[in-house]
Amino acid sequence: MKKRLFTPGPTPIPESVLLKMAEPIIHHRNPEFREVAARVNKNLQYLFQTEQPVLTLTSSGTGGVESTFVSLFSPGDTIISCNGGKFGERWVNMPRIFGITVVELSVPWGSVPTEEQLLPLLKKYPETKAVYLTHSETSTGAATDIKTLAQVIRRNSNALVCVDGITAIGAHEFRFDEWGIDVCVTGSQKGLMIPPGLAFVALSQRAIAALEHSAIPKFYFDLRKALKSYKEDDTPWTPAISLIIGVDDALQKIREEGIENIWKRHERLAASVRAGVQAAGLKLFSNFPSYAVTPVWLPENIQWKKFNSLLKGKYGITVAGGQGAFKEKIFRISHLGYYDELDMVTVISALELTLNECGFSLTLGAGVAAVLHSLQSK
Amino acid sequence: MKKRLFTPGPTPIPESVLLKMAEPIIHHRNPEFREVAARVNKNLQYLFQTEQPVLTLTSSGTGGVESTFVSLFSPGDTIISCNGGKFGERWVNMPRIFGITVVELSVPWGSVPTEEQLLPLLKKYPETKAVYLTHSETSTGAATDIKTLAQVIRRNSNALVCVDGITAIGAHEFRFDEWGIDVCVTGSQKGLMIPPGLAFVALSQRAIAALEHSAIPKFYFDLRKALKSYKEDDTPWTPAISLIIGVDDALQKIREEGIENIWKRHERLAASVRAGVQAAGLKLFSNFPSYAVTPVWLPENIQWKKFNSLLKGKYGITVAGGQGAFKEKIFRISHLGYYDELDMVTVISALELTLNECGFSLTLGAGVAAVLHSLQSK
Repeated sequence: MKKRLFTPGPTPIPESVLLKMAEPIIHHRNPEFREVAARVNKNLQYLFQTEQPVLTLTSSGTGGVESTFVSLFSPGDTIISCNGGKFGERWVNMPRIFGITVVELSVPWGSVPTEEQLLPLLKKYPETKAVYLTHSETSTGAATDIKTLAQVIRRNSNALVCVDGITAIGAHEFRFDEWGIDVCVTGSQKGLMIPPGLAFVALSQRAIAALEHSAIPKFYFDLRKALKSYKEDDTPWTPAISLIIGVDDALQKIREEGIENIWKRHERLAASVRAGVQAAGLKLFSNFPSYAVTPVWLPENIQWKKFNSLLKGKYGITVAGGQGAFKEKIFRISHLGYYDELDMVTVISALELTLNECGFSLTLGAGVAAVLHSLQSK
Repeated sequence: MKKRLFTPGPTPIPESVLLKMAEPIIHHRNPEFREVAARVNKNLQYLFQTEQPVLTLTSSGTGGVESTFVSLFSPGDTIISCNGGKFGERWVNMPRIFGITVVELSVPWGSVPTEEQLLPLLKKYPETKAVYLTHSETSTGAATDIKTLAQVIRRNSNALVCVDGITAIGAHEFRFDEWGIDVCVTGSQKGLMIPPGLAFVALSQRAIAALEHSAIPKFYFDLRKALKSYKEDDTPWTPAISLIIGVDDALQKIREEGIENIWKRHERLAASVRAGVQAAGLKLFSNFPSYAVTPVWLPENIQWKKFNSLLKGKYGITVAGGQGAFKEKIFRISHLGYYDELDMVTVISALELTLNECGFSLTLGAGVAAVLHSLQSK
């Protein structure tokens, strides 16, 4: 059976990237690898739209975010962390472990923090060293308006603007320098279209200055060490070489397509999926749609297990289930990374067939037609 | 030009492993991947010769060792750490950052700690919670007698026996359970023959008990979290999926060859390289030869840069240079992982040609003949 992945990480990997990573390995201290690393570093700046350093760590995205907490702050420092889902929740709990005082801005799952919620907190806690925002919350498919909130933070405080861009980078418009972002983290198995195992951390000059004052004990995730090596296109510890070879190829593809075209493609694909699922009679989970992943309510009389085993077992399609309180209540279709228009037709077709076989009443083909109409109108 | 890697990490990757990793990626929460993880977990136990859990982390080997410091101890705890090279030095400095009191047992580079050195320290510091030993010190090619020292520690203290097995596992005889080891860490790009990006941590029941008392702040490297997920053949954070697919294939090869045969092969290859370099008129750096890597003194009148650029540029052979005080003074030939007898002939041939072209006086072919004689006698 042909298998197709529609999950928000790992995402499908372009065939050329897979083959590149399958070449005999090279040594990370060889000039040949330094050239690759230099090109990766340059193209990561393009991806993040920045002239600031973007560091490469060998870890999951969670490790990348941890590196920012342990490298930028000291025990007792106050930060504001916005929590609207599984990952936002992690960025509240994790810094507390390291002794950071966390002011939590909690919003319901599927919703996003607003200027009206953030502003009073900035006034109430003027000592705030940073605000953590999740651009696209993977668990809820809700996208925060980073550009606006970054302005609010910059105008009303000295706090660093820190963004979890793990499922947003490469899907949503993001301009690190222009928007005044200080920290942004992404992972390799998302918009970057390679396997998991690498995290990328962009740091502004304000963030780099903060590295010097941090008193949280750290070693592997010490961004001062990573930054020092970065300046020589190197890493302090042996990096995941094959993944860096892969991301080099993926970044070249990103440059070829053009980052603005990529953002538009994701916006277009996401819109077509929303049109498709609604035309098939389903309801969207979030009113703040991410361009990376679209969560959808499972109709009440359909069991997740039956739905998922049909979709996966009969049609070879893997979507993501719900998380936390929404386990078995929603499912999530990803369109992040290496996807095109016809892939959206594929996933909505399989969804229609599966729903139909689950006894859900729908007009077969209505969802797909809506996908096509949506695509044609953009 | 054909390129051949003789470095102690990354090491060459079997072609079938490269191709396996180049297959379309699968999701880490799929039953299909759980099966892979379950098999990897089982075969890692075989590799470490243990019935205890062997946890898989997405990081370099350094991250793996960090996970043991932050997960097993509390600030103020005392450990003994043996330092005979670049990595031993790291295992002295790193725990200090986390507030651990480190008693350093320092030996000259190329040498290894002995019972006579360790015993007085165990008596002097009865509060010692653990002793860290480097099995094969990559920077010096010196191998510590872990079996003997583990006995010494077990008989004379309650300290955990912790082993950096990063370049030793899969090269040197190692029996986690039988030898009474509590902690052993290895990396993926060594005897496991896959790219860097994974660390593996074996834990005894005594070590598992210690996890509960640790008060060092940690999140990504929290082995309690890793252990909890391990019990369901899962990981707490998104793992480096493609590398786990690769290590699955590599571990199946290891089972096919048989771990004792693999240890013997490494012993045989290492002996042949030592015979070859000596017959070519060079001197060995260490009297405690590792079976993973053989460091050799560069003849006094030969410049490292000229030697290395000839070896690499004309013959396509990458060896490792010296580290620390021995930079440009020694070079290191690795025979760790995916190597056979004829590979040793290859590297010694290229070495002879290179030395000859550097103006070093030798009888061409003498080194290779010594390799062949050595191989035939085993």
